[in-house]
Amino acid sequence: MSRFLDKRYYKLAPYVPGEQPQDKKYIKLNTNESPFEPSPKVVKALNSEEVKKLYLYNDPTALDLRKTIAEYYGVKAENVAVGNGSDEILAFAFNAFCGKDTPMVCPKVSYGFYPVFCEMFSLPYVAVDMKEDLSIDVGKFYDADGNVTIANPNAQTGTLLDVNEIEKLLRRKKDNVVIVDEAYIDFGGESCLPLIKMYDNLLVVRTFSKSRNMAGARLGYAIGSKGIIEDVEKMKYSFNPYNVNRLTQLAGIEAIKDDDYFKFCTNYIKDVREYTVNKLSELGCEIVPSKANFILVKLNGTDGENLYKKLKNEGILVRFLSDAQLKDYVRITIGKREMTDILVAKIKEIKRGLL
Amino acid sequence: MSRFLDKRYYKLAPYVPGEQPQDKKYIKLNTNESPFEPSPKVVKALNSEEVKKLYLYNDPTALDLRKTIAEYYGVKAENVAVGNGSDEILAFAFNAFCGKDTPMVCPKVSYGFYPVFCEMFSLPYVAVDMKEDLSIDVGKFYDADGNVTIANPNAQTGTLLDVNEIEKLLRRKKDNVVIVDEAYIDFGGESCLPLIKMYDNLLVVRTFSKSRNMAGARLGYAIGSKGIIEDVEKMKYSFNPYNVNRLTQLAGIEAIKDDDYFKFCTNYIKDVREYTVNKLSELGCEIVPSKANFILVKLNGTDGENLYKKLKNEGILVRFLSDAQLKDYVRITIGKREMTDILVAKIKEIKRGLL
Repeated sequence: MSRFLDKRYYKLAPYVPGEQPQDKKYIKLNTNESPFEPSPKVVKALNSEEVKKLYLYNDPTALDLRKTIAEYYGVKAENVAVGNGSDEILAFAFNAFCGKDTPMVCPKVSYGFYPVFCEMFSLPYVAVDMKEDLSIDVGKFYDADGNVTIANPNAQTGTLLDVNEIEKLLRRKKDNVVIVDEAYIDFGGESCLPLIKMYDNLLVVRTFSKSRNMAGARLGYAIGSKGIIEDVEKMKYSFNPYNVNRLTQLAGIEAIKDDDYFKFCTNYIKDVREYTVNKLSELGCEIVPSKANFILVKLNGTDGENLYKKLKNEGILVRFLSDAQLKDYVRITIGKREMTDILVAKIKEIKRGLL
Repeated sequence: MSRFLDKRYYKLAPYVPGEQPQDKKYIKLNTNESPFEPSPKVVKALNSEEVKKLYLYNDPTALDLRKTIAEYYGVKAENVAVGNGSDEILAFAFNAFCGKDTPMVCPKVSYGFYPVFCEMFSLPYVAVDMKEDLSIDVGKFYDADGNVTIANPNAQTGTLLDVNEIEKLLRRKKDNVVIVDEAYIDFGGESCLPLIKMYDNLLVVRTFSKSRNMAGARLGYAIGSKGIIEDVEKMKYSFNPYNVNRLTQLAGIEAIKDDDYFKFCTNYIKDVREYTVNKLSELGCEIVPSKANFILVKLNGTDGENLYKKLKNEGILVRFLSDAQLKDYVRITIGKREMTDILVAKIKEIKRGLL
């Protein structure tokens, strides 16, 4: 820290990203990446002719990309905003709709970035307790004062809220924005996107990092009513108008166009999730029911930190999360089936060592 | 605008980027892009093998890139922060060091984004009058209360401050941060980077958009003392840790490595700038002395807006800037020599039509 940092940031504790080792040493199941390469259409499109065009600015409006996303989801380009990852889109939305009298209300166990955004931008933040089973207690949000952000499926836990429950929330919170972070929705959950046309207070946030196999390209998007998208874009144009670079815009367009590949990849993950849950259950692990591309796993006789360390020693990276309620768990990304087999074998050995 | 936008943003007027037409209709001299493609090393490195790796997150620390930049400038990686364009780096720095009692002080005619960042993040902003000749009146910053941001060469005008003048400012403002935005320094100005080792209050901000021919890749960086860089990174990790995507990190490394190409491109621009100034002066244009890759040009008998429109009709995009002090001017990017020849021919015709 320098002697110049503004005092409002003295206590700011930044988000801690999962480990991103730059070598190939690990089976990497810690940051919910897809185990599949981007669509071959993406690889074909990002060719040397496009790289040569990098001397020209990207389109700040990202119109072709927004049109492609809009068409895919049956909305208009004016209903779509894009960002440098969904983190940026979330930061824009938190800023646009919260203020000193309007907190952001989030589940206590969820994406660790939500409270950090609030701290970073001096926005009040309210955490709502989870149910005993780690699912979201949506009724507790009805009368909370402020905007709401819910990840669905929830980050860290993978639990899914029914669209009807989201709709009830939208009605009860009609004078506030409800952000539904659907980063993991493509792995078996039902999206609340169709509600966009009925509720002007809904903002759905999505990412290309997980189900579109492009974590390293940095592309997120938001879909909502025209007015709400205008507000998000107002933030973008007041912060970083050229936020999505040329190649990523192109990659996004091609990824959306390859729907067969998208379906293949997401179906594969769903299958392997079921397979993994079965295998680990057979070993006696407790697993929180997940509709995401990860599962929260508890191995009796050890805590999460210990399990994380032991697996890391064995060449498998999983994520230990610091939330008090998750201290018994590790979060494991669903990868390829052969990764699960190695994981299960290692957990079996760890269990034996404990017995 | 939606009914949910926080009231602090009702009056926010976002930055307006220069036109970025997505067709090839124009000779594009409006947003200070390089007329040269990225280095062949960049084109070679961003191959399909790298595109295939986009399913993996980028390194949030961008360590290889920061090391490469650091080595090039004779500093350490801990002295370098990178961003999604220098706009993002500037936004981080404004946030880190300004606060309700610490304004940002900038020249009145400069990069149009500086006041927008302040408005966006509710930071006080002070504009300091220019000298008659549109150069920066650096003495006026000595006793101004707050941090200082100066673009050198200055955005919009291209005028250069001597490093000695920057050093005097650093001494006079030793308890505040002085940000020197060197987006255009590689086109003939002397950088104040060597002062980093003597002054812990200096932050130099740079971009790959202009002199490294990569506007569409989005890459900016800041160099400063360890503490000041830690503060900028604290903002990054509280906003968007994965801010520079995989391919852009790689492109940045390769661009830095190709120093011969960098020198060839920047020398070419310097030569064409001189050539353009001479040609337009012969036509009777008034030109503000510039060390950037653009020039401010006034054609007597017409104002800037009219000249901009007439050139656009003729297929040449230049930039008309809304600052009251620049209303007689257009800002013209220095491109290839043949672009200048067409530009000069068109301005000659416009002048004839006016006579």
